[in-house]
Amino acid sequence: MSNDPLVIFTPSGKRGRFPAGTPVLTAARQLGVDLDSVCGGRGICSKCQVTPGYGQFSKHGLTVAEDALSEWNAVEQRYDDKRGLPTGRRLGCQAQILKDIVIDVPPESQVHRQVVRKAATVRAVTMDPATRLYYVEVEEPDMHEPTGDFERLSRALAEQWDIHDLAIDLRTLSQLQPKLRKGGWKVTVALHKSAETDGHALLDLWPGFFDGPLYGLAIDLGSTTIAAHLTDLVTGEVTASAGIMNPQIRFGEDLMSRVSYSMMNPGGALEMTRAVREALDRLSVEIAKEGGIEPARIVETVFVCNPVMHHLLLGIDPVELGQAPFALATSGAMHLAAKELGLTSINPGARTYILPCIAGHVGADAAAVALSEEPEKSEDLVLIVDVGTNAEILLGNRDGVLACSSPTGPAFEGAQISSGQRAAPGAIERVEIDATTKEPRFKVIGSDLWSDDSGFAAETAVTGITGICGSGIIEAVAEMRMAGLLDASGLIGSAEQTGTPRSIPEGRTHSYVLHDGTAENGPLITITQGDIRAIQLAKSALYAGARLLMDQLGVDDVDRVVLAGAFGAHISPIHAMVLGMIPDVALEKVTSAGNAAGTGARIALCSRAARSRIEDQVRRIHKVETAIEPRFQEHFVAANAIPHATAPFPHLSALVPLPAVHFNAGGGDDSTKRRRRRRG
Amino acid sequence: MSNDPLVIFTPSGKRGRFPAGTPVLTAARQLGVDLDSVCGGRGICSKCQVTPGYGQFSKHGLTVAEDALSEWNAVEQRYDDKRGLPTGRRLGCQAQILKDIVIDVPPESQVHRQVVRKAATVRAVTMDPATRLYYVEVEEPDMHEPTGDFERLSRALAEQWDIHDLAIDLRTLSQLQPKLRKGGWKVTVALHKSAETDGHALLDLWPGFFDGPLYGLAIDLGSTTIAAHLTDLVTGEVTASAGIMNPQIRFGEDLMSRVSYSMMNPGGALEMTRAVREALDRLSVEIAKEGGIEPARIVETVFVCNPVMHHLLLGIDPVELGQAPFALATSGAMHLAAKELGLTSINPGARTYILPCIAGHVGADAAAVALSEEPEKSEDLVLIVDVGTNAEILLGNRDGVLACSSPTGPAFEGAQISSGQRAAPGAIERVEIDATTKEPRFKVIGSDLWSDDSGFAAETAVTGITGICGSGIIEAVAEMRMAGLLDASGLIGSAEQTGTPRSIPEGRTHSYVLHDGTAENGPLITITQGDIRAIQLAKSALYAGARLLMDQLGVDDVDRVVLAGAFGAHISPIHAMVLGMIPDVALEKVTSAGNAAGTGARIALCSRAARSRIEDQVRRIHKVETAIEPRFQEHFVAANAIPHATAPFPHLSALVPLPAVHFNAGGGDDSTKRRRRRRG
Repeated sequence: MSNDPLVIFTPSGKRGRFPAGTPVLTAARQLGVDLDSVCGGRGICSKCQVTPGYGQFSKHGLTVAEDALSEWNAVEQRYDDKRGLPTGRRLGCQAQILKDIVIDVPPESQVHRQVVRKAATVRAVTMDPATRLYYVEVEEPDMHEPTGDFERLSRALAEQWDIHDLAIDLRTLSQLQPKLRKGGWKVTVALHKSAETDGHALLDLWPGFFDGPLYGLAIDLGSTTIAAHLTDLVTGEVTASAGIMNPQIRFGEDLMSRVSYSMMNPGGALEMTRAVREALDRLSVEIAKEGGIEPARIVETVFVCNPVMHHLLLGIDPVELGQAPFALATSGAMHLAAKELGLTSINPGARTYILPCIAGHVGADAAAVALSEEPEKSEDLVLIVDVGTNAEILLGNRDGVLACSSPTGPAFEGAQISSGQRAAPGAIERVEIDATTKEPRFKVIGSDLWSDDSGFAAETAVTGITGICGSGIIEAVAEMRMAGLLDASGLIGSAEQTGTPRSIPEGRTHSYVLHDGTAENGPLITITQGDIRAIQLAKSALYAGARLLMDQLGVDDVDRVVLAGAFGAHISPIHAMVLGMIPDVALEKVTSAGNAAGTGARIALCSRAARSRIEDQVRRIHKVETAIEPRFQEHFVAANAIPHATAPFPHLSALVPLPAVHFNAGGGDDSTKRRRRRRG
Repeated sequence: MSNDPLVIFTPSGKRGRFPAGTPVLTAARQLGVDLDSVCGGRGICSKCQVTPGYGQFSKHGLTVAEDALSEWNAVEQRYDDKRGLPTGRRLGCQAQILKDIVIDVPPESQVHRQVVRKAATVRAVTMDPATRLYYVEVEEPDMHEPTGDFERLSRALAEQWDIHDLAIDLRTLSQLQPKLRKGGWKVTVALHKSAETDGHALLDLWPGFFDGPLYGLAIDLGSTTIAAHLTDLVTGEVTASAGIMNPQIRFGEDLMSRVSYSMMNPGGALEMTRAVREALDRLSVEIAKEGGIEPARIVETVFVCNPVMHHLLLGIDPVELGQAPFALATSGAMHLAAKELGLTSINPGARTYILPCIAGHVGADAAAVALSEEPEKSEDLVLIVDVGTNAEILLGNRDGVLACSSPTGPAFEGAQISSGQRAAPGAIERVEIDATTKEPRFKVIGSDLWSDDSGFAAETAVTGITGICGSGIIEAVAEMRMAGLLDASGLIGSAEQTGTPRSIPEGRTHSYVLHDGTAENGPLITITQGDIRAIQLAKSALYAGARLLMDQLGVDDVDRVVLAGAFGAHISPIHAMVLGMIPDVALEKVTSAGNAAGTGARIALCSRAARSRIEDQVRRIHKVETAIEPRFQEHFVAANAIPHATAPFPHLSALVPLPAVHFNAGGGDDSTKRRRRRRG
């Protein structure tokens, strides 16, 4: 056995013996310990900070002497003076191992540190971004050995970082000579590791030592809104978030109307591509400003989006997505230069990654949800519903995952609703109706008070009460059903049937008055029979899609339900169950994943391994096409009742008693109506 | 032994037995016979034409029956009716082997056909272009298996052509869906094979079967002129050639003045980059027009150029090339999208290849000369001189190759000469001086007559006699030396010393009147003492470079000399030897390689193997930097005499008696002059 000192690294537990005088960083590298370094051990970057442990380590059978490491040196002192080293810390590249020792690598010194990505479910992502910085010292040119500067830089990266196959673009190449000379043949390079090969692309470079950090943008490109998260590529932290409306809305509210616009207008697809690219470029400038960084620090972007947004972003006419067989131009993950997508304000060398699409109706956004929620790792059978203008639905567990999309339409987002509006200050977002008095109370966005709380009028004086948004209409309809204002078929009862003057006639049907602001020149906000029908269509489509996947698996129940999508985060589970949007399940088994697609985008931004994982996973997901499944139509019709009547709902029944009311359209009894219909 | 029919392919000699009914193309593929096919054996492309042999083949011990192949079929008849099949030809994909047979594959049916690239030396290039066409039939999309169109195209190429790792750019991707549908799921793709990996890039595609041909441009980007050859990428034939002046001339005549322009003017490099890129784009349109093809048919470009042109083409400031240690930004071969170089009028997917540079002064043009002339394969020691504004010099044989460049300046191109001009109609290009009468005769560009032939005046009436070009000045100086008008030190004798009134005083020196056109309002064309000095400087630099390489090898003689460069093609070997431009060698050992750099560019365009070969070869070439070798200066001074006096010249002496004249500047005796100088 060697007499060389023993070094034990924690938390990895890796250990080995090294000749006295070996720097801690060198020992770590040889043992494969995850200890960061940007400057390659030159005492510049301080990324390799470690905490040596002294005294008794009975677990390891080791006593560490005070002089187990070499003395604090001038490089460490200089760094401490300049930027400060936490107490007890040493620089791994400076401190040499002299005697047996235990060395702790703190999380912030690990390259592949874990980032807890959301408080709720406490899952972690291991940092493994595609782009990172390397400091390198390059040999000066020599007339006797006339290689180019780029070739010498490549050789230095091979020798100092074991990085081979370096590629460079013309723009960066044109900056290479002046920057090398400005930095005195020392330079920091941003390298992007290729997905397919071992190669690296040189995105940008800085004279001398450059500390970064570099940033990435995770972008959730929705039909209605575009949300971006500015993310530190070393820590994985979100530095800023920003959202804007998708300017394509002026060409059509929903996906199919944008496809139609493209079909009816030559060059229409190109117009929409231009609009969204310009908006994305503006958004990236805006978010950089919000994060207080130069836009050039943004070197990566990741997109998740539905197939139509995907094609329009890429400049592909989405016409094929508007008709069977809904063929995608490409379904694979995309690796692009960001400037190809018109992102010209961020780093000119920035790269873009777009998650793969699952099918013609199930896009990269659904893939991102799968990446975030990992149904393929679930022990129990999980139904994941990403509710938007289109609903993406995933069902599965460790044995396999199914996916489909369902055309819910925009009703869940407050569109096609008589008093509907987008979720914005002034919009009613929560509703309660007293089952006895049939009187409503509600909350509006911008205030935490209920409408019957004192101070509500004052708090909403500025925004007013302007309409009802997606979550508000769902709660309103469910509450109307629970209060006996609405029967299972979806008919609103008359004042005489419901016993409240808030039931008012509207043509041959009735509406329920949620809020009458006319006295203050405000709107009369009602839930009309048409609104109920719109919600019924949307929720039937959603349920039918979920049910179709359950059929495929041959099950009548799921173990749990995850509501995803920015909107999913605001749906109250009990109201969703009353409406019959989702299969019957115990209330505590319904959770919200928040913006799971956005979370998936952030994961893909921080982790190359995650990109590989979702690309592989997408190939395994079994896609079900709702448009060609005759059972979808059957389920859709059967799911029209409130709640759906295609399966029993013991959990819901135990939770909420639903009044056994039964109305008819004219306000008379049901038999009358049936007779009228038969005659008409 | 199998009873299956035996098939023997000529000229390869490959043979094998196949079950009766096997198509000839299938047998060829299984045996690895080089038989072309673009449509993959579907009877569409007719590239697989073969000539079956019937009767006795005593060499092979075979008698081929008339019914050894299946009968002429409807597909062959249709093709014959439509486009005509030469007599005796069959389509390899249609004709089935029934009995023993000998099948000849004519050269035009071979993919890797050999192209004889120049009549003089009869060397061949095997066609192996980076880009070629493939016809492929793609599965229609299916909702039950929702892959993208691109993924199905990729799969079809893998199955039908064994091509994997397909990449596509956004532009081509945006055209994929309409073109696949227009072609009824049949499509012809142009694929560019990657240099480094097994991957292919999809450059362009055409609905259905597309016969091409596709073209490449081989471009010799010189400081003064740009020459391009439009080349068929299947046959290797040059369809059209065109040349233009390099518009960068307005920024400086020679390389160093362009480097200076860049140093003195902020943005100057960019101006020169823009100028040359615009010119190249115009040139590509012009040459396509001349070749009678659509510019979009051009899918490849290859550039050869000196390092300064190389950097300016790439958009790199060449400032480092103007000062020691003459560091290149990059020396490796470049693979680019042609549009990155502003070539926007050719196929938008076109690729560019730039040969590697050898050193800061020895560029991709020298590499191209090495590729064309293959000194590394030479048995005897060959000196290759590419004469231009800079001379590139290669010396070597199978044991190794040395390279250097020498700053000859523009005198050899007619610049910095009192009556000098570029090679254009009206320029004197050939000169003879009668040794007895000292009277000259000459030829001008545009006429085949000598100036003392009858009819010369009439033939040159339009162009006039306007000046003297590079080859003319070399011949004039050498002829003056041979006629005793000039002594070995380069002094022109006075009328009294030379015995001809054509020696006229000019300041304190003399000039020789080559042509006096003043009576017809034309120019007085003289060779001045300044002109002699300019030529002496240029030829000394050239010789000193060659001599330096010879020193490195420790030799005093070379076995043969190759003059390359467009200008090299016009230098008369005997005059070059009299001047002492090149080492003494037997006259028949001096040959011209014509535009060897341009030939090298064409070879690289036609052959991926040639690209690998020269990239490898460039790494092996030993570079000698003239600027830091003290012996270069010594050789330069010693080579000032006409001919050079640094080595004996037995071959030249045996060929031409050189008068032992000796003049001095003032026309008096030499001792006077020496005294005057000592005093001054």
